[in-house]
Amino acid sequence: MNEYIIAIDLGGTSAKIAVINEEAKIKERWSVPTDISEEGKLVIPNIIQSIESFFNRENISTTQIKGIGLGTPGTINQTAGTVAAAYNLNWHGAQPIKKQFEEAFDVPFFMDNDANVAALGEQWQGAGDQAANVVMVTLGTGVGGGVVIDGHLVHGVNQAAGEIGHMTIEFDDPILCTCGKLGCLETVASATGAVNLAKHHVSSFTGTSALKDAVINHESISSYDIFQLAEEHGDPYAIMIVDTYSDYLARALSHIANTLNPAKIIIGGGVSASGEFLRERVERLFKQYSFSQIKNSTQIVLAELGNDAGIFGAAQIVNNGLSN
Amino acid sequence: MNEYIIAIDLGGTSAKIAVINEEAKIKERWSVPTDISEEGKLVIPNIIQSIESFFNRENISTTQIKGIGLGTPGTINQTAGTVAAAYNLNWHGAQPIKKQFEEAFDVPFFMDNDANVAALGEQWQGAGDQAANVVMVTLGTGVGGGVVIDGHLVHGVNQAAGEIGHMTIEFDDPILCTCGKLGCLETVASATGAVNLAKHHVSSFTGTSALKDAVINHESISSYDIFQLAEEHGDPYAIMIVDTYSDYLARALSHIANTLNPAKIIIGGGVSASGEFLRERVERLFKQYSFSQIKNSTQIVLAELGNDAGIFGAAQIVNNGLSN
Repeated sequence: MNEYIIAIDLGGTSAKIAVINEEAKIKERWSVPTDISEEGKLVIPNIIQSIESFFNRENISTTQIKGIGLGTPGTINQTAGTVAAAYNLNWHGAQPIKKQFEEAFDVPFFMDNDANVAALGEQWQGAGDQAANVVMVTLGTGVGGGVVIDGHLVHGVNQAAGEIGHMTIEFDDPILCTCGKLGCLETVASATGAVNLAKHHVSSFTGTSALKDAVINHESISSYDIFQLAEEHGDPYAIMIVDTYSDYLARALSHIANTLNPAKIIIGGGVSASGEFLRERVERLFKQYSFSQIKNSTQIVLAELGNDAGIFGAAQIVNNGLSN
Repeated sequence: MNEYIIAIDLGGTSAKIAVINEEAKIKERWSVPTDISEEGKLVIPNIIQSIESFFNRENISTTQIKGIGLGTPGTINQTAGTVAAAYNLNWHGAQPIKKQFEEAFDVPFFMDNDANVAALGEQWQGAGDQAANVVMVTLGTGVGGGVVIDGHLVHGVNQAAGEIGHMTIEFDDPILCTCGKLGCLETVASATGAVNLAKHHVSSFTGTSALKDAVINHESISSYDIFQLAEEHGDPYAIMIVDTYSDYLARALSHIANTLNPAKIIIGGGVSASGEFLRERVERLFKQYSFSQIKNSTQIVLAELGNDAGIFGAAQIVNNGLSN
């Protein structure tokens, strides 16, 4: 009787762990602090120990476990079962994660990149409504992405599918990205990107604006401040920045849609907390840039699962992995 | 003993028909003129009759036929087994093609759009080297495309995946596309697009150029002329146009690669006859616009099958369809 999946969403602060049943319901959930000391070598053993304690406490046998799924930062080597350097976990060399889990628990183990896993979670249990083809773009400090085709994640020949944040989107007046390339979507459509835009265009805005004043006076501003000033206060420069931000994002989403015509493109991450104020703008410009057969068939929607996307995605990679 | 696949590549002038064995070798091939009179209602019956004659002549039974695959212009409704309006076949309403074939031959029948089928053919037997993920862009009068993920064509929620020709690629000084949208890739990177560019930028080129003179004198020019003038004669304005053309194409291909990281992006179609002269330029700019993990893993290659891509793709949709 294989009833449960153990889903793990590993982050720089904590690992969220959940026990999910075959109806995709969370039966138990807890978290383990991520201890990145000693080059992060305690991270995985701490998670394993916590799951073992849970099994002992609840008198659960591994025969009741269908599999374990892990979403993690870093670049995955699926063949080797390792994760290469993940700096926020203090991992500098390849980590033999699959081996560690399989030695501890005699059950199938699957893992994937956290941005991919979040996309799969939203596709399966969130805004994706289980549509076969869904793309998710996550607007956080950077811009991440995940591409689901036929219900499965696309990895690409070098595990770099879904690098939507590094799509070149500004050619004439680009900002340098942390990746070393010019004009990446991430330089203009992340939390950092909104602030970049506010600084970059300040000299071209001639009106009166609290945001403009803050930039000129070198005050600390965040993307949250910019969206708040635009939505709550109607600050004209903040509105201009939100419009510019939305235009870049709409361009990128139209490129994706004109290539894949997915049922949904899901906008998630911290910046998507601005919700409909952002979505509606992006959708309007997206339709302007998309082919007629696509603009009314590919929907632009907001993520629904918040921080739980990673947990559900980690569970679904087990289901997908076992069905292969 | 199911040995052969009947592959059909239907075009406005003729339908190419081939008998392909399990080693993907063409055993027989012929073509049937496409008779578009009477609203194209003879197109499919003529093909069916030609295949029946072949079976009779060669004493082939349908038990030796694994399936029939058709690549066709127009928009496919896979559920209904119909093709909606295809103007170069003089088809104005939905054509019940699957029904026609299945009534004539008691074997599995599969069909897909011609651009998709060509992409699958190149992925399977051409420049794609059977890599799981391959995208093809076809530079003809327009720009077509096909996306293969995990060896299967991506169709999209409204059958519009692969509409790479309608990716918006010029935002500031766009040309109107026949689709009604502004700035589509097709307006600048098709055969028509090269001529559009030569006309569009002529006033900004101050040097001496045979191409410039031809444009100013309203002489008839083709994309072939432009590429010839650039490659064979070093015409400076023609080189500028080829560079501009390549830059737009490279932008589009980088958007695709930053989303999907396919093993190969295949450039095909009439314009790709300029071969390495075009490919090398596109590749150089593509690398400039692509994420570091992608630029050296996604290869830009030229199509290898020419007009046979459609035949091989039509065969492979049978293999894929039967494996589902």
